[in-house]
Amino acid sequence: LGLHDEKGISLQGVEECKGADSIFLELYTNMLPGFSAKRFEKLLGKKVQFISRNDLEEEDGVVVLSAAEKGKTVFLVPGDPLIATTHVTLRIAAKKRGIETRVVHGASIISAVIGLSGLQNYKFGKTVTIPFPENFSETPYNVIKQNKLLGLHTLCLLDLTVDRERFLTINEALTLLSKTERRRKEKIVTPTAIVLGVARAGSKNPTVKAACIKELLKLDFGGPPQSLIFPGELHFMEAEALVALAGAPEALRRATDEY
Amino acid sequence: LGLHDEKGISLQGVEECKGADSIFLELYTNMLPGFSAKRFEKLLGKKVQFISRNDLEEEDGVVVLSAAEKGKTVFLVPGDPLIATTHVTLRIAAKKRGIETRVVHGASIISAVIGLSGLQNYKFGKTVTIPFPENFSETPYNVIKQNKLLGLHTLCLLDLTVDRERFLTINEALTLLSKTERRRKEKIVTPTAIVLGVARAGSKNPTVKAACIKELLKLDFGGPPQSLIFPGELHFMEAEALVALAGAPEALRRATDEY
Repeated sequence: LGLHDEKGISLQGVEECKGADSIFLELYTNMLPGFSAKRFEKLLGKKVQFISRNDLEEEDGVVVLSAAEKGKTVFLVPGDPLIATTHVTLRIAAKKRGIETRVVHGASIISAVIGLSGLQNYKFGKTVTIPFPENFSETPYNVIKQNKLLGLHTLCLLDLTVDRERFLTINEALTLLSKTERRRKEKIVTPTAIVLGVARAGSKNPTVKAACIKELLKLDFGGPPQSLIFPGELHFMEAEALVALAGAPEALRRATDEY
Repeated sequence: LGLHDEKGISLQGVEECKGADSIFLELYTNMLPGFSAKRFEKLLGKKVQFISRNDLEEEDGVVVLSAAEKGKTVFLVPGDPLIATTHVTLRIAAKKRGIETRVVHGASIISAVIGLSGLQNYKFGKTVTIPFPENFSETPYNVIKQNKLLGLHTLCLLDLTVDRERFLTINEALTLLSKTERRRKEKIVTPTAIVLGVARAGSKNPTVKAACIKELLKLDFGGPPQSLIFPGELHFMEAEALVALAGAPEALRRATDEY
């Protein structure tokens, strides 16, 4: 389904739906804030059946697999398929039942956020998800640190609940990471470190803002999804992009000129 | 434009084209093997103007920027926009001229190959491009090694010429890496190491095959684009995916069971 709303799907995706006997849809592995099932069904001229997390993870996707044994079946997911483990599990189950599968790709939040940042894709290290405070973990801090020591940028996805009613904000994520910083004092997530916040990637009005953490903490990034990037070493073209496209302080450009 | 052909574009992308005063297109930063400009123009009901590398990099995209000063202008690119540095440069130039820009995302070869592999996205380290033999470099070997030491997978994109007439094959890439291995003997790219080759991601007939290097060297992956993944530590679900979906040897599953 790609990003944001029912127009994120590719023409190939629409074509597959039109030729399908059954169409299923899950919207819990990622967020499509502008998606309307009604508009989407109108666009296809077909009915779409919702699949819950329970259908997929407790019932092993049996409703989708049974339909696929009877006719051409499309299973629609947010973003780019198979980035969520549960989709890989379903594909393996299909294979074991002798069902042929094919993937139609879509825009992914990962390349969208990296693209909007203006930073170079090949300079990103491992990606990490920052969990809600009740599932607090120091793993995100460790990943940011490991990448930074290698000069690499870190993309941090922020957690959301299965019903997508609650999402971790950039503000909350920075607060959690700062808590770890105050305890460990390794100078990874300091108040003056420049970070990049991206909200609503894939929509018509994304917010993309680079500033030091103490400044970002004053901002409200608005609606979801929200993500964070911790830059590693910046090429001067990357610093230029952060200043021109994400409003980073001019000093950042001078800092990389010297570097 | 997303992947493979003129149907890789999203509905949002088509809508933007239909409302545009000028439409430009570049096809040199990545490969769309099935793309037909004629079919695409028919689909839009509009003419599209081709932009060469020279237009963009020597002439600083002035033809696109001038059009954008006069009316709504769409600039179409393969994959997901802004993953190529030259697109970021153009966006900065637009900003400096006071031209408002907006990004419509598309499927990227990066998330497509990762999705098809069945491996978990958050376990990938830095991505690297393997250059043609005439631009030989040990950087790809070093990146694979660094990621492997951290237990992470490495996505290797394979070089292609600007005219897209020539592309580095999986076979050639493995031969180049093996050459470095024979010299350095660090046991990173050994003949028995399991790697994953992916060809034509985004098309209806991708080839996805995991095997040890000496076996993969016997295979012809067919048409471009081609990519390689060097797995790091495998979760048992990842090994399961490589066996079920990429024909990896059964022994791989047993190896991770023990691990």
